Formats: sequence, structure tokens, C-alpha cells
Amino acid sequence: SVPTGVLPLCHRPPEWYRAPRQPPSLLLTPCRAFSNKKIMVELDESSGVATMTFKSPPVNSLSLDFLTEFCISLEKLENNRACRGVIITSAIPKIFSSGLDITEMCGKSTEHYAEFWRTVQETWLKLYSSNMVTLAAVNGSSPAGGCLLALSCDYRIMVENPKFSIGLNETQLGIVAPFWFKDTFVNVVGHRIAERSLQLGSLHPAPEALKLGIVDELVPEEKLQEKTRAVMAQWLALPDHARQLTKAMMRKTVLDRFIAHREEDIQNFISFTSKESIQKSLRMYMEMLKKKKS
Amino acid sequence: SVPTGVLPLCHRPPEWYRAPRQPPSLLLTPCRAFSNKKIMVELDESSGVATMTFKSPPVNSLSLDFLTEFCISLEKLENNRACRGVIITSAIPKIFSSGLDITEMCGKSTEHYAEFWRTVQETWLKLYSSNMVTLAAVNGSSPAGGCLLALSCDYRIMVENPKFSIGLNETQLGIVAPFWFKDTFVNVVGHRIAERSLQLGSLHPAPEALKLGIVDELVPEEKLQEKTRAVMAQWLALPDHARQLTKAMMRKTVLDRFIAHREEDIQNFISFTSKESIQKSLRMYMEMLKKKKS
Amino acid sequence: SVPTGVLPLCHRPPEWYRAPRQPPSLLLTPCRAFSNKKIMVELDESSGVATMTFKSPPVNSLSLDFLTEFCISLEKLENNRACRGVIITSAIPKIFSSGLDITEMCGKSTEHYAEFWRTVQETWLKLYSSNMVTLAAVNGSSPAGGCLLALSCDYRIMVENPKFSIGLNETQLGIVAPFWFKDTFVNVVGHRIAERSLQLGSLHPAPEALKLGIVDELVPEEKLQEKTRAVMAQWLALPDHARQLTKAMMRKTVLDRFIAHREEDIQNFISFTSKESIQKSLRMYMEMLKKKKS
Repeated sequence: SVPTGVLPLCHRPPEWYRAPRQPPSLLLTPCRAFSNKKIMVELDESSGVATMTFKSPPVNSLSLDFLTEFCISLEKLENNRACRGVIITSAIPKIFSSGLDITEMCGKSTEHYAEFWRTVQETWLKLYSSNMVTLAAVNGSSPAGGCLLALSCDYRIMVENPKFSIGLNETQLGIVAPFWFKDTFVNVVGHRIAERSLQLGSLHPAPEALKLGIVDELVPEEKLQEKTRAVMAQWLALPDHARQLTKAMMRKTVLDRFIAHREEDIQNFISFTSKESIQKSLRMYMEMLKKKKS
Repeated sequence: SVPTGVLPLCHRPPEWYRAPRQPPSLLLTPCRAFSNKKIMVELDESSGVATMTFKSPPVNSLSLDFLTEFCISLEKLENNRACRGVIITSAIPKIFSSGLDITEMCGKSTEHYAEFWRTVQETWLKLYSSNMVTLAAVNGSSPAGGCLLALSCDYRIMVENPKFSIGLNETQLGIVAPFWFKDTFVNVVGHRIAERSLQLGSLHPAPEALKLGIVDELVPEEKLQEKTRAVMAQWLALPDHARQLTKAMMRKTVLDRFIAHREEDIQNFISFTSKESIQKSLRMYMEMLKKKKS
Repeated sequence: SVPTGVLPLCHRPPEWYRAPRQPPSLLLTPCRAFSNKKIMVELDESSGVATMTFKSPPVNSLSLDFLTEFCISLEKLENNRACRGVIITSAIPKIFSSGLDITEMCGKSTEHYAEFWRTVQETWLKLYSSNMVTLAAVNGSSPAGGCLLALSCDYRIMVENPKFSIGLNETQLGIVAPFWFKDTFVNVVGHRIAERSLQLGSLHPAPEALKLGIVDELVPEEKLQEKTRAVMAQWLALPDHARQLTKAMMRKTVLDRFIAHREEDIQNFISFTSKESIQKSLRMYMEMLKKKKS
């Protein structure tokens, strides 16, 4: 059977997170907007739709803290019966998310690499197996891990600006997307497009991303919110139970493969990341980013 | 190895059906058109092409009787060496088939659910693994089980009327397409289109169905017969043996998975269908259909 | 783990081939163009790109000798650190490769069939799992085994002449593409297009091949070389190690399945090919080819 976000986090969650599941009556208690450091979460109880807005300058990079907050927020919504759908989007202009925070992978301890990677896994697992309707409103560039977040949703709407690009560009950094990034990508675009795009580490401008099927539609930036709500309403028109079982059936093969190789994947990440050649690659890439900025 | 329609039916077939396979010479004896209650079967011995025309008013719904007749007719053609290809089509205006007969799933005994589902399975198994060239001439709307019949053929031609739609819309009824409906669909349209279409329970108008790859081509209604014959001739130009082995190879994974989980799938169907919440969903849907009609 | 061209050949290679891997310094020694009987191999050391040009009149058919030479040449390049990419193309006008040499499959001993098939397998395995960037410059028609060579590369550029066609047309000859031809094809074009094309044994003119995704782009014949070099440069811009691991990950499932069924596949080939009905089919096809020529 398909896991649906009930697996334990690898680091200490706040007290409310560990609280036993509340009875239905309490869960229907209005849940006001709450904002932690990096993600603003708002729930519109009339529609049952939550919005998670990334607001972690400068580029919404997926640090350990960001991912931990993402997991906790998503879990909280998952357990809230008043919430049936989630939109993920960004408050940072031109950037949806820049992907995994490379500083978490550079010059740190083995224990840190393990904790970081476990949280990356957990984030994907919770999002990809969510019972809620998940929708990515991609309002900026979205490389690597940022692209993975979008690919893990049920539907992707991107702003039609050709300066915004999206893709799994890991090879450009001298690293390799893990197998479950690949599986998620193949489920969206098919084997051939994934093989070519992953080998070349391509970042596809929005119009090309649409053509390849990486995103489902493009809209002008000013129409993004309206369009996102309309699409969400369309998905919420279906009975939750039938839709959830169908989603679980579609994603079962990829989720099962991940679960079976989860610890192995952490060990692979640690040994790969610990290599001096990889550390050098990542340092060079960070230097390049710094120079680009200045 | 791939089964090719030799598995026993779950209910009593007529005497001729249980007769031992006839020697080749007898099999070449002309087989005149025969019509049972719900499906007209005609075999053109000069071309080796049979046509199975659904004629079960009002909407060719796939009842236990209809499916039993379908299985028996297909098996008979499969064993007739004079027959190399089958066209399935409808004699009911605007409807190809409305899919599984919901009355077979409502307020019946566990034994009835088991018999019904076994026959649904058998129908798909015989059609999907047929050694003959199978062609769907979709001359009307084709939701759910009707769509499955079309998807199980080698090729699908649909009338270009945008009022005719096709799709696996089970979620709209609060139920879930079984895994082998899903596998058949994914083999035709790929994972992404299947995931989205199944979750939304979409019924696609003919032009959209073509774009998504659910059908292979559209023709004006008056050209349907001519086009169907031309396509069939193209497929029959290939040596049977090589074509059959190739087809079996292509469909082996999906057929093997089905065979391995066949009994489990029946148990799932029974326990799901027996739930009061599902019974309620189905009754509401039938009420809605009745109101629509009047 | 994925094999990468280190598996032994099934027949005796020349002395240099069995030599132990040379130390890096020696491997960087310039490797001049060398030409055996059927394939011209040139290595441009400044770019690290080798070109393997098929020059076996009349139609570059894949005989045991041709395939043996192909394996040896590819292995030599694979072990040469100065070589990072390979282009395969043809020196014969209008023909890329006509596919497997049918005379190797007609009226020969069981031992010969086994040796021939093992070499066909080895050729595909080496090419499909190559660590180098592999690029097919398809400058002529490319049926059956010729198509397989192109499909096994990382990228396919075809001359836009609609008289040139490409496809796995085995069923037209009364034979069946083996499962790993099919798997390679499905990875490129997806399940539906492969199912239809393989059953019909279609040879697709260049424009149709582009539309179906069998090739990645079309160019005028006079631009082929320039375009091929530009594409190769794009692929070589990626760090080898990350690109190689990504490629191995993408092709792992198909390679693993092949390895698991390799000997079984040889036995199948022998027993199928030894059948009198198949021998007759192949003789008839050869007669037809002879008549066509004269």
C-alpha cells in the first residue's frame, strides 16, 4: 500500500506536530494563516484550499530548515480535514525555488549529510504521496530541487515569461539526480525526454517546458492566481476518496521503489557527496554563482 | 507466456462453445452471420474480417449478459481459422457503449458481484490478448468500460463529432478504475496523460481524444466503414504469426501483472462495491441519469 | 550495476584487443585513423570525437564480420581516454545500414546462429551502455538492425530526404524483433507508438520518423556533418562523470532485463531461426530483394 505522509521526520518536530490526530470536530476548527520563517501558509476554509508561499530570500533555496518547515506545514494541512488542496508558489520575484541548498552539501559532517538527505527524501515523499490536490504555481525559475517540487504536484501552471526556466540540471553541477527524481520526471514527460534532459542538465525556458510536458500550461503573471484557483476548483469537484485512490494507484510503483531503496539512497548520497572531487565541483559552482551575482 | 483467450469462462457457455477444437478443414467451413440478443456477429470469409456490432438498447451497457455474449462470440471467432480480424462497433446512434451496467453493481449479492467482475475481467483478457487484429470503430460516446473496450483493441478510429466523448470517468461516479484499466490506458497514452485524465475522470470530446492519443484517427461518420476496412486490410497484410508474437510481447507485462493479481482484484471489487458509501454513490449516480433522461 | 562495455566478445579478438588496459599517459598518445574492411574509424584528438563510418557495400548489412569489427572498434575507443564521443554514419549513398545480414540466418548450423546472435547482442550491449556520447548521423535508409543501432545512441540526426526511411520492420519479413530491440524502441518513442510500429513493421520516411520521435531532428544532407559536430559539442560540454552515471541510471532497467535473459534469448533465436517455416520466409524475402535489384 502507498504511504501517505505518515512517516516520521528525521529531526525533532515541535510539540503540536507530535500530538495525536485530533477528532474531526476539532479539525474543523478554523485554522488561521500561520507563518514560520521561510514559508507562509494560508488556509481558505471556505474553499478548503491552502497556499504555501515560499519567502526565503534570496532564492528560496531548499536548506535543511526550509525543508523541515515544508514537511511540518504539509503534514499539518494533511491532517486538517478542512484542507483538501494545496497550492505551492513563491513570494520572491523571478524565482520559484533555486533547488537544494548547496551549502548543506559542502564541508559538512557525514551526520549532517544524512540528516539533510533524509529531509529531502521526506519532503518529496510527503508531497508526491499527498492525499490533497497539489498544484504548483511556478512564478519564477525552478532548477533542480525546485523543479522536483513542481513535478511532484498533480498539476503545474507556469508564468509564460521565457526568462523563467525549469529543469533537473544536476549534471551541470557535476552531480547526478537520484533515481526517484528521475522516476518522478519520467512519470511526467516519459523516458526519452527525461533521458535527454537529465543527461544534458537542461534548464528549459517556460515555452519549451510546456512543449515537453514539464508544465501543464502557461499563463501571464497577472492571471496566475485566478487560473490556479480555477484549476484547483476543477480538481476539487471530484469526490476525494475516488481521486485519492486513483492518485495512489498511479504513483504506487515509483513510491514502492523509493521505499525499498530509501536507506541505500542515503548511503549513496553520503558517499558521493563526501568525495573530494564532488566537493571540488560544488565549491567551483558556488564560486561561479558568487561571481555571477557581483 | 501470454494467455490468448483460452481461459475458461466463469458461467455456463452453450454446448457448441465447450466442443473440442475442430480440425482445420471444418474450421474453414463458411460461418454465416449469427446474432444473439445483444451483439450481431458477421464474418466476411473473403477478407477474414468479422464485425461485432453492439445492439443492446438503450445504451449498450455492459451487463453480465452482454459481456457473456461478447466473450463467447470472441472466443468463437478466435477459434475460427477463417477469421483473422475483428471490428467492434455499435448499432445504437450516438453511443458506442456506456460502460459497465451499474445495476449489476447495486444491491446484489456477493456471489453476483464476483460473477459479474470475473466476466468483466474475462472480456478484457480475451480482447487484449486476442491473436486477431482488433479494431474499434467508435461511432458514439464511450465512457468507462466502453472506453476500455476501445483501448484494448489494436487500433481506434472515432467519428469526428465533438459531441461524442471517450474516457475512463470512474472517479466522477465515486469509484476507481481497477489497475488493469489503468495499465491498458497507460500503454496507450503514457503515464502523465493517464494520471491526469483518471484523477479528473475526464470524458474527452473526439478532437481532444485524438490529440491525447486515446484514439488513432478521426473520420466523418459516413466514411467510418470504408476507413475501418482500409485500416484492417493494412494490418492483415502482415504475416499473422510474426504480428501475433509481436503483439503478445508488447502486452506481456500488463497481462502477466493482471494474471498474478486476478483473484485479489475480484476480492477488492467485492469489498469495495459492498461498502454502503459506494452503494450510495452509485444509487445517486443512477438517480441523476434517470433525471437527465426525463 | 550497469555494464559498460567490458564484457568479453564471443569470438577471438586480435592481439591488441586482449592487451591489458594501458596507463593514462599511453592512452593519450595520438590514435591515427585506422580502417578495417568494413568500418572506417577516425579520431579527432583535439575534440575527443571519433567517427565510425560504415563502408561495406552494397548496403552496410550487419554480417558477423561487420558486427565483430564494430564491437572491436567501439571497445578500442571506449578504452581510449582521449575519446569522449562517437559518431556513427555511413559512406554508402542512400543507406545507413540495411540491418542484420539475412544470409547469416539462412541455411547455417546451430553453432553459427549462436555465434551470430551473440555478436548481435554484444554490439547492442556495447553501444547502448557506452560511457561515450553516442550520436547517429543517419544519412540513408535504416531498417531493422540499422534502426536499432541508431536507437541505441544518445541522439539521432537524420537527413531530411523523405525517400530515406527508418523503422523496425521485422514483421514484414515474418520474423519478430527480440524483446531488447522492443525495450530500446519503447524507451525512445513510448509504448503506443512502438506497439503499432512494431506490429505493422513500419518503415517511416524521415519526416514521419521525426514526428514519432524515432529521430531527434532532420537536416539537409549538406548540413549533416556541421550539425552533428555542434550537437556533439553540446553533449561534451557536460562533465563526463555526471553524464555517464545519469545515462547508466536511465538505461539500467532495460540493460538489467537483457543481462538476465541473455542466454535464453540466444536459445530462442536458434530455435526460431531453425524452423523450416522461418527459413522459408527468409529465403522468399531474399528472392524478393534479388528480383528488386535486377
